[in-house]
Amino acid sequence: MGSKVKRKRWSENFSEWYNELIETAGIQDKRYPVKGMNIWLPYGLKIMRNVEKLIHAEMRGTGHEEVLFPALIPETEFQKEAEHIAGFEGEVYWVTHAGHDPLEVRLILRPTSETAMYSMFSLWIRSHADLPFKIYQIVNTYRYETKHTRPLIRVREISRFFEAHTAHDSYEDAERQIKEDLEIFDRLTRLLALPYIVSKRPEWDKFPGAYYSLGAEVMMPDGRTLQIGTMHNYRQNFARAYNIQYETEEGEHEYAHQTTFGMSERLLAALIGVHGDDRGLVLPPTVAPIQVVVVPIPKKDVEGDVSVYSREIAEELMNIGVRVHVDERDIRPGRKYYDWEMKGVPLRIEVGPREVEGRKAVLARRDTLEKRTVERSDLVKEVRETLDKIHENLHRRAKEFLEGHIKRVDTIEDARRVFRDRRGIVEIPWCGEESCGLEMEEALDAKMLGTPYPEENSMITDKKCPICGREAKFIARFARTY
Amino acid sequence: MGSKVKRKRWSENFSEWYNELIETAGIQDKRYPVKGMNIWLPYGLKIMRNVEKLIHAEMRGTGHEEVLFPALIPETEFQKEAEHIAGFEGEVYWVTHAGHDPLEVRLILRPTSETAMYSMFSLWIRSHADLPFKIYQIVNTYRYETKHTRPLIRVREISRFFEAHTAHDSYEDAERQIKEDLEIFDRLTRLLALPYIVSKRPEWDKFPGAYYSLGAEVMMPDGRTLQIGTMHNYRQNFARAYNIQYETEEGEHEYAHQTTFGMSERLLAALIGVHGDDRGLVLPPTVAPIQVVVVPIPKKDVEGDVSVYSREIAEELMNIGVRVHVDERDIRPGRKYYDWEMKGVPLRIEVGPREVEGRKAVLARRDTLEKRTVERSDLVKEVRETLDKIHENLHRRAKEFLEGHIKRVDTIEDARRVFRDRRGIVEIPWCGEESCGLEMEEALDAKMLGTPYPEENSMITDKKCPICGREAKFIARFARTY
Repeated sequence: MGSKVKRKRWSENFSEWYNELIETAGIQDKRYPVKGMNIWLPYGLKIMRNVEKLIHAEMRGTGHEEVLFPALIPETEFQKEAEHIAGFEGEVYWVTHAGHDPLEVRLILRPTSETAMYSMFSLWIRSHADLPFKIYQIVNTYRYETKHTRPLIRVREISRFFEAHTAHDSYEDAERQIKEDLEIFDRLTRLLALPYIVSKRPEWDKFPGAYYSLGAEVMMPDGRTLQIGTMHNYRQNFARAYNIQYETEEGEHEYAHQTTFGMSERLLAALIGVHGDDRGLVLPPTVAPIQVVVVPIPKKDVEGDVSVYSREIAEELMNIGVRVHVDERDIRPGRKYYDWEMKGVPLRIEVGPREVEGRKAVLARRDTLEKRTVERSDLVKEVRETLDKIHENLHRRAKEFLEGHIKRVDTIEDARRVFRDRRGIVEIPWCGEESCGLEMEEALDAKMLGTPYPEENSMITDKKCPICGREAKFIARFARTY
Repeated sequence: MGSKVKRKRWSENFSEWYNELIETAGIQDKRYPVKGMNIWLPYGLKIMRNVEKLIHAEMRGTGHEEVLFPALIPETEFQKEAEHIAGFEGEVYWVTHAGHDPLEVRLILRPTSETAMYSMFSLWIRSHADLPFKIYQIVNTYRYETKHTRPLIRVREISRFFEAHTAHDSYEDAERQIKEDLEIFDRLTRLLALPYIVSKRPEWDKFPGAYYSLGAEVMMPDGRTLQIGTMHNYRQNFARAYNIQYETEEGEHEYAHQTTFGMSERLLAALIGVHGDDRGLVLPPTVAPIQVVVVPIPKKDVEGDVSVYSREIAEELMNIGVRVHVDERDIRPGRKYYDWEMKGVPLRIEVGPREVEGRKAVLARRDTLEKRTVERSDLVKEVRETLDKIHENLHRRAKEFLEGHIKRVDTIEDARRVFRDRRGIVEIPWCGEESCGLEMEEALDAKMLGTPYPEENSMITDKKCPICGREAKFIARFARTY
């Protein structure tokens, strides 16, 4: 099976493992003839759709309404907020012609939808009674990435871009929204078994136009971090640029406060990276397109209909809402195990003549690779419990991995050692000055993720900034990032 | 309420009624600053999502796999099939720059996805064992329409474009696929209560690159037809251009046969137009975001808690899977009726102190506007039955309207009279010559939809083509179209 050869790959050559698995597990096809734009294959899309269902449910539960905006934005709208333009103009795609003629007003393909949405906000929002105003969409967006592209992670077409946009009557209410976003994110990532950290981005790495930006990261197996969620408080920056005013109860006109909350198919990249192993994907049962695969193992000249028995099991599981598949292909069981392990199916049920005769079944867990024989009469209960255990185990071991890869140090030398050694996230005392932050980034060849959030977690005393030697005000996190 | 003024609008000024309702009912906002590109509002999107759920279920049930392709297609791929380019090059949007630089290979925004997909088909399809190959996606597509645009009907961004693409080992199997498409379409439109006709398009109106094209039309209230579905048999045209070959069982290499099946948000336009009335939308219960609205009508100084009673009813309905909403806004009941009638909620339940006291409820049907008092104990059964009756009634009356607007004539003069009178579809004997067909189109200021499909329905004998006087071979259908 060559498992010795592969054994080292997830942990030791993650990047290669990832690129290969994306195709072999049927997530995406990278051969589309535009660099950085990939094709969603059926299996990958099914996982992503399950992730999106969780997002839609969270949005419904928190009073966000779904909308869809056009993907094209007139140049004139794009150019209303100065910082935003400066941040994006280097990476937008321009539509300049239609049919055989040049367009009168050039259009950009949305890199994100602030500039598409906010002139409409100024029409929709009239009074304090319209606030808070909460909408979201999941759409395709475009960024001309000049860095090395990587499926689901760094792409020129982000095809499952989630963006929630809100407007509020005060800074406090916008802050309450950011808190709600963090709660949504926490519930969602719990369902995906993805432990994470949240950092407040440094000034030089804010979203263009934001007052402040939060970023949520997971730890990939190679010790690099992956940003999978962002929350921005815009204050009134965009409201001023797009004239989003509302009438207060007292009849005054005020600019609205705004926030956004963003995620994307990077959530799937995180699922793949964080939970995977040398055999392939390991999917949390919550989003696995197939939660249980039943493999009948008929034996020549042996009595007992494994096929009928397998289907009965499948039907019983289906009736309690389990996504189950019976693999009746005419190939060897070992090949079937290999396929479904690669595709990350959380639980396999093996059924041979012995199981039929003894009214039993073998459960094989994808996460621990443990096998256990259970009574047929206990099967439904056992499957339910095992799926829950798998989920908990995935979350627990990912959390241990994340926590084991965060290291607090006092000096640049110690920080360098961490990056040389096992990588991960390094926390260093910081005076708060941009120049010192940038110097640390350069010294470590790493990115400052920001300061731990909520902010009380970022405060320290009695430490010095290792660059300037002054009193440190914050803990700053550094990592090699995707 | 000015209902006299409005009474005439759906039937007599449909176009104005439609444009206004799209905004007042919360379907789309047309004020987006790019002509022909509109914003989906929450209520409209909820209806469309329900339509899409039915489409996804049909696709799953017929073994189509969902994929997602990038929206951008390199010019070099777009230019491989000559007829296809000729048909679309006048209306594609061109992406020519990214960031500050011109692109080496210009990109088009997909007007449809043949040219995005088929070079991948040639990689994916290797052997007869890979066939039939059936995929679909629902995506945004772009066409630079020079005609008058209209929300959901004629737009520059078709944002909910459904396209199924299949490949087969023979013409016969491709024909079987077209038959399956027609069956899917029939089941889907039955669920939408939308009666329709299918025509085989004339040669000059085929899809660019197709061997033949079928189109399905509904009849809008002003007697104009709206195409809501198309099925195309491409034969091997695209397979030759994109080199889609498979190995037969005998080891030969053959080009695949291909078909496509298309629909879009025009399905929603049809729902709005076909079922609506002067009060607004009338939605089939299958896709109504709210199937039943409960309106409590408290009376001052009268005993009996209408609010509690209303919520109990709602809960009971929710438990059997009805999408129900209790309108407890502090406004007059008449205003609530007006709102929910405009939004097309199929069934309203009115609850006043009298109903609470007598353990009854009033059911008001949106389609017939009939009111009926039922026993509280029968309510669940009555609601279920009434929703079914509403669906059947919508379908029946739309079918009568469609059939009452198809008229068979022998002469151009009679055909002209039909268009002067009540419009609709006119069926005329036709020799089959393009020149005669085009002359009839001009004489009638109408479009030839094509010949009735299946083809046995289009044959006639003993009739003359009214243009050339020769023996007529077919019945040809003409209509003013959207």
